[in-house]
Amino acid sequence: MKYEEYVIEGRNAVIEAFRSGKTVDKLYIQSGCRDGAVQTITREASKHDTIVNYVAKERLDQMSTTGKHQGVIAQIAAFEYAELEDIFEKAEERGEPPFIILLDEIEDPHNLGAIIRTANLAGAHGVIIPKRRAAGLTATAMKASAGALNYTPVVKVTNLVKTMEELKARGLWFVCADMDGEEMYGLNLTGPIGLVVGNEGKGVSRLVRENCDYIAAIPMKGDIDSLNVSVATGVLAYEIVRQRSVSDR
Amino acid sequence: MKYEEYVIEGRNAVIEAFRSGKTVDKLYIQSGCRDGAVQTITREASKHDTIVNYVAKERLDQMSTTGKHQGVIAQIAAFEYAELEDIFEKAEERGEPPFIILLDEIEDPHNLGAIIRTANLAGAHGVIIPKRRAAGLTATAMKASAGALNYTPVVKVTNLVKTMEELKARGLWFVCADMDGEEMYGLNLTGPIGLVVGNEGKGVSRLVRENCDYIAAIPMKGDIDSLNVSVATGVLAYEIVRQRSVSDR
Repeated sequence: MKYEEYVIEGRNAVIEAFRSGKTVDKLYIQSGCRDGAVQTITREASKHDTIVNYVAKERLDQMSTTGKHQGVIAQIAAFEYAELEDIFEKAEERGEPPFIILLDEIEDPHNLGAIIRTANLAGAHGVIIPKRRAAGLTATAMKASAGALNYTPVVKVTNLVKTMEELKARGLWFVCADMDGEEMYGLNLTGPIGLVVGNEGKGVSRLVRENCDYIAAIPMKGDIDSLNVSVATGVLAYEIVRQRSVSDR
Repeated sequence: MKYEEYVIEGRNAVIEAFRSGKTVDKLYIQSGCRDGAVQTITREASKHDTIVNYVAKERLDQMSTTGKHQGVIAQIAAFEYAELEDIFEKAEERGEPPFIILLDEIEDPHNLGAIIRTANLAGAHGVIIPKRRAAGLTATAMKASAGALNYTPVVKVTNLVKTMEELKARGLWFVCADMDGEEMYGLNLTGPIGLVVGNEGKGVSRLVRENCDYIAAIPMKGDIDSLNVSVATGVLAYEIVRQRSVSDR
């Protein structure tokens, strides 16, 4: 992932950055500023565990590039989304058949981050998320990924089904997780594969499901309905790891 | 799990219930009460998503058993910890060799809850947690367990190592998760088993580790250090499920 850092200045811009879930790495506020907007900013900062540095106006004037800092300057961290080609390149570099995890409307940024972490360790070459109705790479997701975002490309696409069709044309098979599928141990999950994980509540949407070659069920031996979505993704991703390692022997 | 519900009355008792992580199911506050202590209670309530019911003093007087409600009455939910015997009974009922998940100082109640959820669905017969330095069955853990706490016994023990020795005498083998162990696919994880999961940061403690028969490694194919502990538990628990289902065939 490309990682960028940039500076924003002015009260509304900084409040907006917090509210849209950006990671504010450093926050500078002019000493003595205590009006409503600045209080909103310090409140957001404490909510997001951002340390506030109170500095003299002269220091802010020096740091400012616009000359209009209004007493507030923030350094923002941002991850740039990758391209599909980055995923294929990664697979090629490692000499492995592509292994991609596709998230169909995962809403909780904790889950998104945890899944990117799992994707990295299970050796997936990338993660694909849709633009709409899904958590993006917010500060929370970044934190939950435990650094995996620095390594595992995340691609954002407009239409997940269309992207699946493109990937099918490039040789991928798709498996999605659903309770009424076939037990995962009986499926052949080797070869170029896309693992599709559904929304926390609703599961995989109908169109996406219809575009999958296999529907895999994790055996459920208990009393409640379903595993946490990041745990389920881990269990399925490692079944792929196991089958790949067996077929290599 | 035995589930109990009880009523507490008075400001300090209710504040204490929130702060000690108990689940407040219902909260009644006398209309018009707005002093500091009541404000603290409503703040705690909103933090924990508890709905506040504002009622007339007469209603509280009727509900009160002590006659000293001070304008605040709460209904508390509490799970009673189970006994080791409950776990063995569950295994016997199902005609399966015991499968227990032991948590060595899991600190985050979200992780505790998620692991209980996984334990339930992977068919483990119970979860054992230590009394010290570990998350207990707080409201957060209950929520994260997604109802699994109603089914899967959770036992709290004073000394995890001593409990492991007791369980060994009853025929259990122990496997713990650690990166420098043997790859899990090569281990024999069938039979009566205890899966030991370590602390989020430090992993399994030395003494506990020395009491394990196997040290299992989840293959790590990525760039970062480790999986989230609930994901790792899910992956290992399902390797046990897989091996048990293969050995049944």
